[in-house]
Amino acid sequence: MATLGGHIASRPNFSDLNPILAAGNATINVRSKEGNRQIPLNGPFLEKSPEADLKQEEVILSVNIPYTTQWHFVSGFRMAQRQENAFAIVNAGMSVKFEEGTNRINDLQMFFGSVSPTIVSASQTSKKLIGRQWDDQMLSDACQWVLEEIQIPPAAEGGMVEYRRTLIISMLFKFYLKVRLWLNQMDPQKFPDIPEKFVSALDDFPIETPQGVQMFQCVDPKQPQQDPVGRPVMHQSAIKHATGEAVFVDDIQPIDQELALAVVTSTRAHAKIISLDVSEALECPGVVDVITAEDVPGENNHNGEIFYAHSEVICVGQIVCAVAADTYIHAKEACKRVKIAYEDIEPAIITIEQALEHNSFLSSEKKIEQGNVEHAFKHVDQVIEGVVHVEGQEHFYMETQTILAIPQTEDKEMVLHLGTQFPTHVQEFVSAALKVPRNRIACHMKRAGGAFGGKVTKPALLGAVAAVAANKTGRPIRFILARGDDMLITAGRHPLLGKYKIGFMNNGEIKAADVEYYINGGCTPDESELVIEFVVLKSENVYYIPNFRCRGRACKTNLPSNTAFRGFGFPQTTVVVEAYITAVASKCNLLPEEVKEINMYKRTSKTAYKQTFNPEPLRRCWKECLEKSSFYDRKQAAEEFNKKNYWKKRGLAVTPMKFSNAVPTAFFNQAAALVHIFLDGSVLLSHGGCELGQGLYTKMIQVASRELNIPASYVHLVDTSTVTVPNALFTAGSMGADVNGKAVQNACQILMDRLHPVIRKNPKGKWKEWVAKAFEESISLSATGYFKGYQTNMDWEKEEGDAYPYYVYGTACSEVEVDCLTGAHKLLRTDIFMDAAFSINPALDIGQVEGAFIQGMGFYTIEELKYSPKGVLYSRGPDDYKIPTVTEIPEQFNVTLVHSHNPIAIYSSKGLGEAGMFLGSSVLLAIYDAVAAARKERGLSDIFPMNSPATPEVIRMNCTDKFTDMIPRDDPSTFTPWSIHVS
Amino acid sequence: MATLGGHIASRPNFSDLNPILAAGNATINVRSKEGNRQIPLNGPFLEKSPEADLKQEEVILSVNIPYTTQWHFVSGFRMAQRQENAFAIVNAGMSVKFEEGTNRINDLQMFFGSVSPTIVSASQTSKKLIGRQWDDQMLSDACQWVLEEIQIPPAAEGGMVEYRRTLIISMLFKFYLKVRLWLNQMDPQKFPDIPEKFVSALDDFPIETPQGVQMFQCVDPKQPQQDPVGRPVMHQSAIKHATGEAVFVDDIQPIDQELALAVVTSTRAHAKIISLDVSEALECPGVVDVITAEDVPGENNHNGEIFYAHSEVICVGQIVCAVAADTYIHAKEACKRVKIAYEDIEPAIITIEQALEHNSFLSSEKKIEQGNVEHAFKHVDQVIEGVVHVEGQEHFYMETQTILAIPQTEDKEMVLHLGTQFPTHVQEFVSAALKVPRNRIACHMKRAGGAFGGKVTKPALLGAVAAVAANKTGRPIRFILARGDDMLITAGRHPLLGKYKIGFMNNGEIKAADVEYYINGGCTPDESELVIEFVVLKSENVYYIPNFRCRGRACKTNLPSNTAFRGFGFPQTTVVVEAYITAVASKCNLLPEEVKEINMYKRTSKTAYKQTFNPEPLRRCWKECLEKSSFYDRKQAAEEFNKKNYWKKRGLAVTPMKFSNAVPTAFFNQAAALVHIFLDGSVLLSHGGCELGQGLYTKMIQVASRELNIPASYVHLVDTSTVTVPNALFTAGSMGADVNGKAVQNACQILMDRLHPVIRKNPKGKWKEWVAKAFEESISLSATGYFKGYQTNMDWEKEEGDAYPYYVYGTACSEVEVDCLTGAHKLLRTDIFMDAAFSINPALDIGQVEGAFIQGMGFYTIEELKYSPKGVLYSRGPDDYKIPTVTEIPEQFNVTLVHSHNPIAIYSSKGLGEAGMFLGSSVLLAIYDAVAAARKERGLSDIFPMNSPATPEVIRMNCTDKFTDMIPRDDPSTFTPWSIHVS
Repeated sequence: MATLGGHIASRPNFSDLNPILAAGNATINVRSKEGNRQIPLNGPFLEKSPEADLKQEEVILSVNIPYTTQWHFVSGFRMAQRQENAFAIVNAGMSVKFEEGTNRINDLQMFFGSVSPTIVSASQTSKKLIGRQWDDQMLSDACQWVLEEIQIPPAAEGGMVEYRRTLIISMLFKFYLKVRLWLNQMDPQKFPDIPEKFVSALDDFPIETPQGVQMFQCVDPKQPQQDPVGRPVMHQSAIKHATGEAVFVDDIQPIDQELALAVVTSTRAHAKIISLDVSEALECPGVVDVITAEDVPGENNHNGEIFYAHSEVICVGQIVCAVAADTYIHAKEACKRVKIAYEDIEPAIITIEQALEHNSFLSSEKKIEQGNVEHAFKHVDQVIEGVVHVEGQEHFYMETQTILAIPQTEDKEMVLHLGTQFPTHVQEFVSAALKVPRNRIACHMKRAGGAFGGKVTKPALLGAVAAVAANKTGRPIRFILARGDDMLITAGRHPLLGKYKIGFMNNGEIKAADVEYYINGGCTPDESELVIEFVVLKSENVYYIPNFRCRGRACKTNLPSNTAFRGFGFPQTTVVVEAYITAVASKCNLLPEEVKEINMYKRTSKTAYKQTFNPEPLRRCWKECLEKSSFYDRKQAAEEFNKKNYWKKRGLAVTPMKFSNAVPTAFFNQAAALVHIFLDGSVLLSHGGCELGQGLYTKMIQVASRELNIPASYVHLVDTSTVTVPNALFTAGSMGADVNGKAVQNACQILMDRLHPVIRKNPKGKWKEWVAKAFEESISLSATGYFKGYQTNMDWEKEEGDAYPYYVYGTACSEVEVDCLTGAHKLLRTDIFMDAAFSINPALDIGQVEGAFIQGMGFYTIEELKYSPKGVLYSRGPDDYKIPTVTEIPEQFNVTLVHSHNPIAIYSSKGLGEAGMFLGSSVLLAIYDAVAAARKERGLSDIFPMNSPATPEVIRMNCTDKFTDMIPRDDPSTFTPWSIHVS
Repeated sequence: MATLGGHIASRPNFSDLNPILAAGNATINVRSKEGNRQIPLNGPFLEKSPEADLKQEEVILSVNIPYTTQWHFVSGFRMAQRQENAFAIVNAGMSVKFEEGTNRINDLQMFFGSVSPTIVSASQTSKKLIGRQWDDQMLSDACQWVLEEIQIPPAAEGGMVEYRRTLIISMLFKFYLKVRLWLNQMDPQKFPDIPEKFVSALDDFPIETPQGVQMFQCVDPKQPQQDPVGRPVMHQSAIKHATGEAVFVDDIQPIDQELALAVVTSTRAHAKIISLDVSEALECPGVVDVITAEDVPGENNHNGEIFYAHSEVICVGQIVCAVAADTYIHAKEACKRVKIAYEDIEPAIITIEQALEHNSFLSSEKKIEQGNVEHAFKHVDQVIEGVVHVEGQEHFYMETQTILAIPQTEDKEMVLHLGTQFPTHVQEFVSAALKVPRNRIACHMKRAGGAFGGKVTKPALLGAVAAVAANKTGRPIRFILARGDDMLITAGRHPLLGKYKIGFMNNGEIKAADVEYYINGGCTPDESELVIEFVVLKSENVYYIPNFRCRGRACKTNLPSNTAFRGFGFPQTTVVVEAYITAVASKCNLLPEEVKEINMYKRTSKTAYKQTFNPEPLRRCWKECLEKSSFYDRKQAAEEFNKKNYWKKRGLAVTPMKFSNAVPTAFFNQAAALVHIFLDGSVLLSHGGCELGQGLYTKMIQVASRELNIPASYVHLVDTSTVTVPNALFTAGSMGADVNGKAVQNACQILMDRLHPVIRKNPKGKWKEWVAKAFEESISLSATGYFKGYQTNMDWEKEEGDAYPYYVYGTACSEVEVDCLTGAHKLLRTDIFMDAAFSINPALDIGQVEGAFIQGMGFYTIEELKYSPKGVLYSRGPDDYKIPTVTEIPEQFNVTLVHSHNPIAIYSSKGLGEAGMFLGSSVLLAIYDAVAAARKERGLSDIFPMNSPATPEVIRMNCTDKFTDMIPRDDPSTFTPWSIHVS
């Protein structure tokens, strides 16, 4: 039996028992052989006193919570990064007893959680307040004394020190108000009401069932019933996903002789490996072998990516060696016995600023410039400058990185099954690591449980690690990263630092911009150079600034190497853009939306890199969004609300977007397919794209069904592999369906051309008859399909190019309400208008838009990676890292697919995989709009750092008030904080 | 410890101890806890008396064989189907002691093995002969008395009753001669020598190390060194075959949860299933399930082939049900517990003659006719008629039929690994049995350990049986036929009955032929109709007969269904042709070779079905063979030898051949390939052909290497599967390399066409550079290749067609020596001249010619399937069925590849997979030539039935002499023989 105290001890902040505890005399009634016993739910219990813990063999009989008496008031408070299913940042339970019929304190108890290793009681303060009236003076003293009594050290574990200090007294204030309200209800004559403006501060945000409307254009009613293109066809694996029948790599049945792999990772950011002693690990039960850099038969460093650390480590989390054992638990156990001695190497660069200091870069500077920026700055009404920090993001795919590497008996063949966006890359890395030609390495990919960019490059590295182990042991290797290892090793979205200087006219017209971007690339090249290129190219978003200079550079640091992530730089860079737009609006006394309208591209134009485009769908999305969301009316209503509510504020923001799919290198856009028609008429479809949950396979079946003019049920897809389609490129950049669809279409059209003479001879025949006849006429029923790729290009010397095949436009309007006392926020409504051109599958596309929006919203609000100053990632699981759940979904969530034309893409569609991500920033901007309202009311500047994410901490601390003024502040030079920002 | 007696009991005929035993006083000295003991090697031991057997825990210490004394003579004799490694047909040990200095018998012992369930002693006869002189009269009496004393009943187990009777006295005669020779050596004065003509009869054929010369044309010295086409490249898996590293299906590591399958087969040829009780089997240890016809979700009878017998059985060996268990032993054990009650159905048709009686056919009659046959018969000098029986043949591939069926979790997918010549066929049958579209069924074929036609259709049937089991149990099924089951269930080459009527002139010119062929097809269609078509089309062989009628029909019998076998009817039909040629020669007093020369096609002509061809390479093979083998000189020498040797005779024969590859249906000749070039320049090659050991993969790599102009080491082949190439046809008909080579060539040429612009721009670049550049230019590096197939056709209505793409010509000359007393023969020399056109790989092609020749030789001489009159196959393993071993290889074996042109085929090559098979008949004809010499000397007709195989029994019984005259003969109407012929 687990001990109750033990459980609480391990998570002192979890308990929400405070309201109960504060009621006094509550007990846990337990029984054992020795008889019954009562554990009082009081201070000693909360403070984990051993006597107040369950003993061995005691069982809980009941919990006794007495009723309160008439003049006894109890309440509890809790603030967390996420509304539900999250440990509290601070929680509190408070109880007050009054002298009958008065507001004179007879007894007061205040407990606070998450402010110390155990729950603590503000007993001194409580004692001092006995006999005092329940009035503002009492509150003021109480706050003062509680802050003195409960001191959170500046370097306290968990960080957020000032925020937690603020929460203590904010909660105390909430209790004060609640009691005031209650006293008023007890005796309205005697005890005056609280100010109306304060009432709304008392309640937490209610949890409502989210509602939404999804709008899309139906197919032409004349379209044949059998043709599934354009219809909201269910994801081909939807039911399997729901039932759990869908096979992911770890669901593959055990392979004979298979071993589990666990890795030992570096605990230092930058250090020499003095010694590596695996002897004890080798002795552990079940251990078959330990694999190190010495065991790599080929390249251990392939294109700058290192498989096993050799002689030095360059980040915390770098793989040093791996243990292969009969079970994962054995392997993991043995990992703990590997002894590594390090010697730190200076410098250990963790943040972008440190990288800039040390001139530590992964790439040269990328620049786009138009007009005459210097000249323009001299002729504008105003110039503002600012800095914006955008932190990183964890992919948090449901399925962690998983590899099954099966060495074959002959010819050094190896078969790998893995969840990847890029089987070719895995093949390349494994081939390099093993020094075996690629034609011996078969990589199979059936589906991944989410990827979001995190499975573009990392599976190759992990695949090589696993393959080396499989090669050494001669046995199949199952290598599944536990969530903590996955978060630690594979890193995520690049943190970004943006610096801007903007010149504009008083009417809101922006004339000049000079912007610099730096991203934290981590310790190896990965795709950081490409990310910074995308940052620079995409940084204008929808705004035309005639004199525009944008520069970017990827920093090399001693963090795990950051990698591709949905949006690929765009969601970071546009925060900076929206920040300066908002600042300009503030300076011009305009709404940000007005400044956006003024500066937005309105007709066929050239981008800053001189690519021509027509923003007509953007204009439509923008206008429809403003109109259909009743933005201006609701903005007005929010202002009314804000006037009436001091502690809760509403904010709205409308975010327009011009997103570009695909990549500026034409051959990265190529794709291939292989289509077989079997003699029973059934069709086997293979292509180079990866099913990541986005529904690519479903769309490909739709394409084949239309092109071959057969029911979708005739078409089957088994997996994507290097055996059927070689050299396939990554499934990323929102172009999976675009390019593979073209390849599948091509293959099907080749087949139909071949079948055409047969069909012409027997036009009323059935599909199967035509197939049989074709076979009899020796017509090949197998074809490769190919798409040469969009003919994109980018000349960085000339700073121009047709970098992207087309743009996806969209606009989102979000409205939030924030709690100024806690920093909590609630997303009330979001309206998205997304230019889908012609949607091949509206169900899937809306799913992508919604999913990306929510993931973006998480990125911009509650997802927060915590690093130690030494570069150790703290957040290694769902306990420490909060992605949105159902409570974060907009209460009202409307998505409309806007119809346009895009003849360059298959069926005039557009790829929508990533675009929605950035629209999540409408929530960030709405939050800042609400915060600005609070600040304005409090007489503060409405220009303040608009960093991302806008966490509860950021919201609360920007809503400066008497409580934030009251808390002690520490001199930063006197301590090392628990965590730092790395952007 | 196994009991010695027990071991002997199980194989009473195995012992070759007879010479030792006959020496008298020999003992086996054994020891146990109870002490030492001696087992005399005498009558009781040989007759398996329990006292003369080893007891539990006794170990053999030594075997004591005393020296013979001066006037004591001992000898042993043994005759078997094969010279080595075979149980004796009859063996004997004899010992005689003479009164010192005389030829008066003091003691005589004669033991015979394989004439009775135990070894028997002719003790009565021996006793009666004591005191007799060692002379001809004694021999005559001894023979008489021994035949009376040792009676082999007419229906005795093992059959060959008259032969065995003959062997008893033939051996006695050999002993008599040996003792005579020895007495002469003891005292030449007193005891006269034996006749010189008899001396050679005494020795068995010596075993010599075979020697051979392989001749082929080297490639043009100007051919680039890297181009492997035309060179004798080693088989790609040769070393792996030798070391055992080559992975066959049963070498695939166990799959998680896998079950073993064993089948219960019918014991009746034709019967109703009254009841099927599997309850006891289900209770057996390890048994998971029993699968019956009820468990087939789809078709149980697909195109006439039945997976699980339902309600009735139509042959012995038909699968009735299958047991799936944790181990094969458990499955097999449980099979014995399945109780099936039958009720016989009349008739049970076993032989062709029975089928003819009952008008039981699988196909309509196929006929080819030219000239006016009836008219011609009226204008010839002579007419002969005859009947020829050609028995069947077992494929005896090294690897028995093996299937691994792995059900997948999703979408009713199933993956099968199997050794097959026709993965598409397996896919079709499994799809039909499971009622699942073919795109769900993936059939993989890496290699088969021999196939010879036996893995064209049968794996589909067995695959369906396994798939149904896998489907029912939901677990992987490993289904490996034990040798006995394989021989029983999968049947083999069609037995054939040929009837001819030949009209010819006295000069040997054949003017008219009317020939009828019937094959024993067994109980289901399989490919019997196609086989009889081939029999009819190919039956003219190399001979032009102006008035020619050939008819054929496939008989339906209650035997397991016969199937494709190397040569596909041709090796059977041509025995009939050679038989009538030989008969004509005899009638005209010419050598058969002279009659062949007279009637052979000599210039561009039309076949009987009106296909034009040029027999120039045939003429070359024929002339070179006669010349280089010094046929006429050696024929002369053999005649000299025969004059000098009464009991041994030599014979020679030269056999010309016109063989046709491929099939008369164009779309059966189509083929496809899929070639990928990976970015490291390595190439992955897939095609529809199956590697059966013949070296197809090696040739395909040669083709790809030449076409892509890269070293062969760059090219890799993993397996053949329905996943990479759909709808591929069988690898059979000698066209594997022909058609798949064209497909591979096509794919490679497509790729080279694509690469051409890249190469032109950088002509000095390396392969890998071109590949990388092509990728950068978005050039697809994957291509399907196709070959539409040879445009063959056959119109059976018109009796004409261009049935075959081309002909392979060849000639073989063989010389044998036969032992007229035992029927043994020795192949002294074979010279083969085979028209290979341009050999893609002379090493592989000569291997195919040699292998086919040896397999043909086995078919025509020692391979003999034994059936009970009720249709039960007795011969179910290497103990009962003898394929040639090293001792049967010609002592001198010369193979020459003759160069010609064949522009229709890839690189002007020819497929040589089957052609050599028929050349094995030169051994049959040489044997009959030797037998004819014996018969002539004995004043018998040299026209006698020329059936196949010419087993020792046939040879001996045709060499009629005083011994064959002496044996008792039984009235066939008085008994049922143990075995029958089914042709």
